[in-house]
Amino acid sequence: MVAQWLETLLSRDPLAPRRAKFYRWFIMLAVVAFTGETVLDTVPGIFGAWEPVVILADRLFLTVVAVDFFVRLAAAWLSPERWQAVVGYVFSPFGLFDLIAFAPVALSDLLGWPHDVDTAFGILAFLKLARYSPALETLGAVLLSEWRPLLSAMFIMALLVLFTSTVLYFVERHLNPGMISIPHAMWWSVVTLATLGYGDVVPLSALGKVLGAFVGVLGLGMFALPASILASGFTEEMRRRNFVNTWHLVAKVPFFAKLQAAQIAQLAALLKMQRIISGEVLMREGDDADCMYFLISGQVQVSGPAGTFVLKAGDFFGEIALLQHCQRTATVSALTRCQVLVLDARDFQQFTDKSPEILATIRATAQARLSQGEEQTS
Amino acid sequence: MVAQWLETLLSRDPLAPRRAKFYRWFIMLAVVAFTGETVLDTVPGIFGAWEPVVILADRLFLTVVAVDFFVRLAAAWLSPERWQAVVGYVFSPFGLFDLIAFAPVALSDLLGWPHDVDTAFGILAFLKLARYSPALETLGAVLLSEWRPLLSAMFIMALLVLFTSTVLYFVERHLNPGMISIPHAMWWSVVTLATLGYGDVVPLSALGKVLGAFVGVLGLGMFALPASILASGFTEEMRRRNFVNTWHLVAKVPFFAKLQAAQIAQLAALLKMQRIISGEVLMREGDDADCMYFLISGQVQVSGPAGTFVLKAGDFFGEIALLQHCQRTATVSALTRCQVLVLDARDFQQFTDKSPEILATIRATAQARLSQGEEQTS
Amino acid sequence: MVAQWLETLLSRDPLAPRRAKFYRWFIMLAVVAFTGETVLDTVPGIFGAWEPVVILADRLFLTVVAVDFFVRLAAAWLSPERWQAVVGYVFSPFGLFDLIAFAPVALSDLLGWPHDVDTAFGILAFLKLARYSPALETLGAVLLSEWRPLLSAMFIMALLVLFTSTVLYFVERHLNPGMISIPHAMWWSVVTLATLGYGDVVPLSALGKVLGAFVGVLGLGMFALPASILASGFTEEMRRRNFVNTWHLVAKVPFFAKLQAAQIAQLAALLKMQRIISGEVLMREGDDADCMYFLISGQVQVSGPAGTFVLKAGDFFGEIALLQHCQRTATVSALTRCQVLVLDARDFQQFTDKSPEILATIRATAQARLSQGEEQTS
Amino acid sequence: MVAQWLETLLSRDPLAPRRAKFYRWFIMLAVVAFTGETVLDTVPGIFGAWEPVVILADRLFLTVVAVDFFVRLAAAWLSPERWQAVVGYVFSPFGLFDLIAFAPVALSDLLGWPHDVDTAFGILAFLKLARYSPALETLGAVLLSEWRPLLSAMFIMALLVLFTSTVLYFVERHLNPGMISIPHAMWWSVVTLATLGYGDVVPLSALGKVLGAFVGVLGLGMFALPASILASGFTEEMRRRNFVNTWHLVAKVPFFAKLQAAQIAQLAALLKMQRIISGEVLMREGDDADCMYFLISGQVQVSGPAGTFVLKAGDFFGEIALLQHCQRTATVSALTRCQVLVLDARDFQQFTDKSPEILATIRATAQARLSQGEEQTS
Repeated sequence: MVAQWLETLLSRDPLAPRRAKFYRWFIMLAVVAFTGETVLDTVPGIFGAWEPVVILADRLFLTVVAVDFFVRLAAAWLSPERWQAVVGYVFSPFGLFDLIAFAPVALSDLLGWPHDVDTAFGILAFLKLARYSPALETLGAVLLSEWRPLLSAMFIMALLVLFTSTVLYFVERHLNPGMISIPHAMWWSVVTLATLGYGDVVPLSALGKVLGAFVGVLGLGMFALPASILASGFTEEMRRRNFVNTWHLVAKVPFFAKLQAAQIAQLAALLKMQRIISGEVLMREGDDADCMYFLISGQVQVSGPAGTFVLKAGDFFGEIALLQHCQRTATVSALTRCQVLVLDARDFQQFTDKSPEILATIRATAQARLSQGEEQTS
Repeated sequence: MVAQWLETLLSRDPLAPRRAKFYRWFIMLAVVAFTGETVLDTVPGIFGAWEPVVILADRLFLTVVAVDFFVRLAAAWLSPERWQAVVGYVFSPFGLFDLIAFAPVALSDLLGWPHDVDTAFGILAFLKLARYSPALETLGAVLLSEWRPLLSAMFIMALLVLFTSTVLYFVERHLNPGMISIPHAMWWSVVTLATLGYGDVVPLSALGKVLGAFVGVLGLGMFALPASILASGFTEEMRRRNFVNTWHLVAKVPFFAKLQAAQIAQLAALLKMQRIISGEVLMREGDDADCMYFLISGQVQVSGPAGTFVLKAGDFFGEIALLQHCQRTATVSALTRCQVLVLDARDFQQFTDKSPEILATIRATAQARLSQGEEQTS
Repeated sequence: MVAQWLETLLSRDPLAPRRAKFYRWFIMLAVVAFTGETVLDTVPGIFGAWEPVVILADRLFLTVVAVDFFVRLAAAWLSPERWQAVVGYVFSPFGLFDLIAFAPVALSDLLGWPHDVDTAFGILAFLKLARYSPALETLGAVLLSEWRPLLSAMFIMALLVLFTSTVLYFVERHLNPGMISIPHAMWWSVVTLATLGYGDVVPLSALGKVLGAFVGVLGLGMFALPASILASGFTEEMRRRNFVNTWHLVAKVPFFAKLQAAQIAQLAALLKMQRIISGEVLMREGDDADCMYFLISGQVQVSGPAGTFVLKAGDFFGEIALLQHCQRTATVSALTRCQVLVLDARDFQQFTDKSPEILATIRATAQARLSQGEEQTS
Repeated sequence: MVAQWLETLLSRDPLAPRRAKFYRWFIMLAVVAFTGETVLDTVPGIFGAWEPVVILADRLFLTVVAVDFFVRLAAAWLSPERWQAVVGYVFSPFGLFDLIAFAPVALSDLLGWPHDVDTAFGILAFLKLARYSPALETLGAVLLSEWRPLLSAMFIMALLVLFTSTVLYFVERHLNPGMISIPHAMWWSVVTLATLGYGDVVPLSALGKVLGAFVGVLGLGMFALPASILASGFTEEMRRRNFVNTWHLVAKVPFFAKLQAAQIAQLAALLKMQRIISGEVLMREGDDADCMYFLISGQVQVSGPAGTFVLKAGDFFGEIALLQHCQRTATVSALTRCQVLVLDARDFQQFTDKSPEILATIRATAQARLSQGEEQTS
């Protein structure tokens, strides 16, 4: 019972009870406040007379972070695998981040270690937030899959930095105090190739400026390589994650149950998942139509010429405007929190081409709904 | 009658009467002038002896902006829904922008509030222009649909800023007055990761410079993430808007009337809308051919071997050069303002593959035109 | 005769006689030298004792540029259309650039106008080079087709500059001499949003720096919009130009003569034009194979197991390694300047799928060549 | 025998013996250390009392680099082609890089040439690393294939630099010491258009700042062109290289032996090569499935309901979860170093559509494995 209560408390399921969401936000705020306080604390005398209060708050944050660790430890202990789960948690990256977030600071306070230890580990506490964001994992996956082109780009950069700084060194070494050695010139070279341009070192001779201009232009091209590799890898990885999520959602819809997994994969590539809050209006009668919807979870209310009715998970709607080119024939709003899969008008034919039986079902439903509407209005 | 006159005055239909266009440009100029005057007014003594004139102009602009609000209010009041339309207008974003543009400044002048209120709201008046540009709406849609990857990118940035500034703080705190605390170092860190490089804070020690160089290179990659997410989202959103517009245009062409909505969606993805001004030449006899046209509105004149004739909305032209690989066989120029849908040569076969009956029609027309041309010239 | 000689002299056909190429390079060098001299001439006393020589060279360049104009005028006069051609040339952009390049400077020297006129028009002479580069035309086409999203991006930028500078002005106006008015703060705002970061104006207060950091990050995203719109438009336009060129090349190959224009358009999208200089080796026996070639103009020599033979315009080669997965079976080198269309292995099946008769021809040729090779070696 | 030993020592095959890898890393480290030492040596007195040690290490590195050259020379001499191989090696770019890496420095030490020669050639030694990275070759290929759009972009940049600097020169020449001539203004112009913004030259007048702001915004767009051309060319070239590699791998798998080369090209475009280290787990029972694997080299162990068995090069696995939408039914881990081709779920149907016989084989294998598993568990 306690085990279950803890499990739902720590759950990240979007349909988990309200206390899970509250707990999540509470921990996130505590971590942000704790790190923020650590950062500000390095400004001498910033808190002035408020220092005792701030220190108290700091202790409080620390306690919260520590309690979170022990709650998670307890949840692991109370799970069926017991010891295995505890060890698995403590040595997972997230477990380590949880431990690092409070243990060194607490120890340092107890043993009177220098204040710098508090500062360093107070900032590492920020890593606790990684649990709530896929960003770090995504970045890791991108670095792993793109390390080859990144390494190539790094090699070209190293060559550029090396050669441009050597040339500038030979040109300006006797007259520019910022280029008296190749390592000095390298600082200028990196600052220029990264298009930073601090301006603390600048070529002074005419020849140096001509060469420097070329380096600046070169930098635009060469240093754009890793940026574009990372950016496209990141985008691709986000898309892949969405695809896997969508696949599992599609596989759950009874409407698609008769399809083979490979066909589902194909559909999943066309569909886009969307979360709808309660009360949100998905379409209004008379709107321009550019998509149809498959309801994954929750309920929506349809108000049109056929009267008002409720659709549940597994149903679809918005197909009439795609089959007959016309505007929306009904207004649809969400009665509860919903998840829907959206199918763009552009992809509709490609979608039904692949599985004619689905088109038949959609057509039949649309026909039934339309005739119902005509009866109603006649 | 007044209602209708007001409605056409405020209309944004590209085929609306000339006064709508004139009114639009007049309001836009008034807003730009009003904001510009507010901006310049903060420079002490900039207008010199001209100040009374400028203040008068300012009052005039304000009046124009205020009148625009009341005109729109009147148009809403005179519309069939009356009160509902008035409330709907005033509480819409555009209505609020219209109100903000003049009410606070007018009030401030009446009640003698400080001049800063004038300045702040004079600049907010610029938001009135949002009505005439889809940019803000587009941006909002992009932020809404891409907030997840943007948040991920923001988290990585926050981590980078936090960790790089902490490291540099520990390295340089005793020797660099710009890094005496982590918040100070964060300023340097953001300025470097955003590749700004003001140069007001620069690492001074050798180790600091080595680390700073790495931060500069890291910044190129990491800060490129949100830029590329926004840029691709923006482009995608513009394309989607064009697609919806094109769809409705295609659905209106009688030539495509027999197609199903899903097929239209498919065609719409291949066609590109283009506006042609009166007198513009769309193709010249003997030109290289790389597209054909469908005329949506307006009239064009075709002069070729088959003589000179006029085409109207619903007709198409330029198909001969795509069917037979040859150069343009006629010169086509616009007689009126026109809207055309352009079909690229590259997409032509994909287009006709999907709907053979369309190909048949195009072929028949081309044949008729060619034989007519041969008769004429023989 | 003179007309023809002039026409070939001014021709830009890649297969034109050598004197056309020589003339082109001569004019380009003269223009670059003339502009370069004008630029350097603004540095006081740069030429020292060499000034008379430089002035002489300058006059010479000017004469060359002027002669080029009159040569082109003569060529227009000697063309069949005579007056029409002359007027057409003088009022075309290129004709105007040619005229601007020498007439004002010559006039200014004659009439003793101030030296600044020489400087300004000497630099405008650089526009003469536009004739030899598609860049300006391409840029114009991009700006024309992308002006809508560009305008949207500009509006967002204007909003950002306006609002960020107003906020910073209110925060820093009393303590930062670089932000004493909104126009002053706008300079900082643009420099920051464009990620320039000169460092001449920098926020000084803590709040100003926090806000400034946000502006810097915002700038990365927002100012990336026009850059990416222009970059993708430019790339698209270059591709379109290549496509049109390739289409006309494909249409000329007898091998593709039986295809319809629409099919050619499809093939043209897969093929890539490449220029080969005399003596260049296109493939070596035993190399990894990833493409086949269609010869458009010129001759290549094939040396393989089937002996050595020469292929002419209209022939293809390299198909064996694509049909049978193996390495190159012969070495092919260019005997003359050639133009070839390259078909990637990746696109080969897509290519032959669309036109089975082409696959049959390729197969037959490959079979003939292979059996010939076996006879030879046996 | 010596020849073979040398050949394996210098081999870059990923399956070569351990000493090849060791030798490769040893040479790479020696080159990096040698270049690093040369760079640091330009800082006066950096090594202090350690100078004799450093000089000794430097000599050592130089000897290693020299020995590497002679080892490669010997390997060439001992190869069947003897003289031809030796000449081929010495005059290849890599051979020249190897020679340049030690010969000039050694000569300079012997003949007492100035120290600058040591510095310059010590840095050129870094080019030896080009042998171990495809980056330089890739960059060369990109520059070769994209030189036309790059040249266009350069022309636009040149125009921009020329015109913006001329305008700023006329505006600020009398009041800005950084813009007293056009070449001076060009330095500012390049620094601004490259978004460097050193801040050593900044427009001072109001008009200059307004124009400067436009130049800064222009720069964002225009200088993004070469960056994006290079970035997309680089990405495309990396993909092409991977494609060729994958093609040869696919052609080696017996499972695909019956396919034609063109079909292989098509499959190769869908498959992605991946290297797996010994012991790595490729899938775990119960995991979400999003791909299947073809084993190219090495062995993997499959543990599932059908017991534990070993798969060898040429086998495939992971197909069950793609055929029936379910989670992984077995755990697969690598027994040795492996190379696998990964087929994404998204591409699975496209893949099997093209070659139904392959789908049949995959289905049969999956069926056999499943029934085996049912027998086992029943």
